Parts: sequence; structure tokens; C-alpha cells
Amino acid sequence: MQQQYPSRLLDQAVQEFSRLPGIGRKTALRLVLFLLRQETADVERFSQALVTMKREVKFCSVCHNISDTDVCPVCSDHRRDASTVCVVENIQDVMAVENTQQYHGLYHVLGGLISPMDGVGPSDLEIDSLVKRVAAGTDATSASPVKEVILALSSTMEGDTTNFYIFRKLAPYDVKISVIARGIAVGNELEYTDEVTLGRSILNRTPFEKN
Amino acid sequence: MQQQYPSRLLDQAVQEFSRLPGIGRKTALRLVLFLLRQETADVERFSQALVTMKREVKFCSVCHNISDTDVCPVCSDHRRDASTVCVVENIQDVMAVENTQQYHGLYHVLGGLISPMDGVGPSDLEIDSLVKRVAAGTDATSASPVKEVILALSSTMEGDTTNFYIFRKLAPYDVKISVIARGIAVGNELEYTDEVTLGRSILNRTPFEKN
Repeated sequence: MQQQYPSRLLDQAVQEFSRLPGIGRKTALRLVLFLLRQETADVERFSQALVTMKREVKFCSVCHNISDTDVCPVCSDHRRDASTVCVVENIQDVMAVENTQQYHGLYHVLGGLISPMDGVGPSDLEIDSLVKRVAAGTDATSASPVKEVILALSSTMEGDTTNFYIFRKLAPYDVKISVIARGIAVGNELEYTDEVTLGRSILNRTPFEKN
Repeated sequence: MQQQYPSRLLDQAVQEFSRLPGIGRKTALRLVLFLLRQETADVERFSQALVTMKREVKFCSVCHNISDTDVCPVCSDHRRDASTVCVVENIQDVMAVENTQQYHGLYHVLGGLISPMDGVGPSDLEIDSLVKRVAAGTDATSASPVKEVILALSSTMEGDTTNFYIFRKLAPYDVKISVIARGIAVGNELEYTDEVTLGRSILNRTPFEKN
């Protein structure tokens, strides 16, 4: 049943909010009533921040990560290792890898994964631009050629498909291609790990290192 | 740890979103990235709907419910019974009672409950205006005097305190004051009903009616 709101303006605001993912009409109403209790200036600042972001945010011309500038802070940071490129699905994944503080190379954001079910093909993703980055790297005139591409995609059917496609596209070039390790998560118990993961983690065992 | 976003504009939008109740930084980021994928016109419509609502929405001068007009559609509907006023905490409660389709009188929205712990006293609520409505009703010149006030507040300490305060304020006037029934909820099993509710529902038993 469509709930009747006492105000058309309120109804419009609730409708707009409930278009957001994971926000139903009850939550939307709660958020709108919260905003209604705020100062007008606060609501204006909220909505201005969204419009400004949408209008002015750029995507890095090198790695396609979100950025305020033409080339993002990571790509323009000369302390970072430009010979390594980590391929990720989206900008959340860049943030996830950055938060580990274990990676000091550059990124390449695909903007999705190959998924025939969802109608996403290789041409919808930033794969050609990745090949160009690698090709430019193998050119003799380039200062810092790409020596390694790390595929850091989700461990799903779509991730595997995309890994394989990129692997084939990069095969002609003199570049090392690696995939992030898959195995049992740190802190997880062996007993509750699924069989496929456990099987893989035995096959891909690594030499024991004393820390 | 404060997460580093690759864009200051993105960071601002995420910060604004995460001020909303129940929205953490992860959810805020997800919502902002969703908006980033929408058309600019859609984002502008979203933010315009919020600002317009905040700027233009009114509160009914009679019942203090949210409204686009000076007097809300409920108060200006002559088919409704103006002799009965249902007192509720907020506008969600008006909608909840309206959705039952069992009530055909008018409302009075308090805008909260008396709560000394939260620093909310009677003067912060629309209680004086309720007394005035009832007083005007007992005046001989008024067309439709208020004959009954129904207290429909939450069954909490704050609700009970507010009920009692309003009851005392309205005692001098010739008006019937009733409280909504408290008992076991329809569909609930007796076994799992708390003792206070069950005890009350036995004390306040009603004559059996064949439907």
C-alpha cells in the first residue's frame, strides 16, 4: 500500500531518498524527517555537497580512480613504485588495498567485471587502457615500464573470467602477471573453511617463514 | 582510523551523508558512489527536493502536523469529526493511525514526549496549544467543541508522564479524556507476552463481542 503523506513536498523528498540502494520508504521517511529538524543551512550544505561532487569530480586519466585532479594523487606520487600496477574492480577496492598499507605501486580501476549475465563485456571496462599502459611500458622511450601487473579481483566467477581475459590480452607483452593469494582468511578456523578454498590453499602452499 | 578518500569532493559528500542517523561511513560511501553513477540531472533533482522541502514545508496551525498549506488536509476536511482530537507524539504516529482507517477525528501533534532525562519539558511541546483548542471548544461561540481527547502516546515512561501531565492540564475542562487500549498485540502468543502487559490486559478486560 502506498502510504499517504500529509505533504507533497515531504512525499517528493521521501521518494527521492528511497531511490537510493538499501533505503526503503520507512528509512527514507526517517532520514527526511531528520533533515527537516536540521537548520536550513545544514540541509543546503548537504545537497550542495552532492551536486558539487557529481558535477566536479574527475576520474584519473591514468588509473581511472576517482580524483579531484586530472591525474590522481597516487599516480602523481613519485615515491610510489610505477613499475607495479594493481588491477581492481572499483574505487572501494583501491581504498581497501590502500588501507592494508602493504602496497606501494600504482592502480588500474576497471570499473566492473566481465559479466555476460549483466550484459557487461570487456569493452565496457577499462581493459584496453590497461593494455595501452603495459604496451607503453614496454616501449624503450618510457621512463618507468610496467614490470608487473597484479590482478586483485574478487574470487568469483566474474572475477575469474576477467582475470583470464586480461591474462590473454597481456600475454604478448613482456610483463609479469600475478594474482592475489587465495586461501583461508586470517583468523578463520580450518574446520569452517569451504572445500574449494581449503583445496586451493593446500595446492598453493608457500614455504614456511619464521617472522 | 579515518579512511583516506582519493577525492576531497567525495570525502565531503560522504561526511554529509554519514551525519544522517543510522548511516555509517561505509553506507555513506555506497550511497555517494551510487549517486555518482546517476545522471547529473537526477542528482540535482534529489538535492533540490530536499532543499525545497526544508524551505517550504509548513506545519498546520491547528494540529501542528506537517503540511503544504497553513491548515492541513485533515483539519480542513469537513467530513471528519472535529469533536474528537487524537493526541500523538509525532507525524509518523499520525500516519500510523491514519493507516488503520479506524479513526475519523482530528489530530494534535505534540512534537515529542516529556522527558526530563533528555531535557524536554512541557513547554517544549505543543501542550499549551492543545489546552487552548479544548478551551476554545468549551466556549459557547465555537461551532464544533472538542468533546473527546484521545491520548495515543507510546506505552513508555515518557508516554505515561506526558499522559498524566495532559490529563491534569485538561481536568478543569468539560472534555472526555481517554487513553488507547494497552494489552497483548493482535497475533501475539499469551506465553511470550510480558507480565506487566498481561496483567494490565486482564485488569482492562472488555466484554466479549461476537463479530
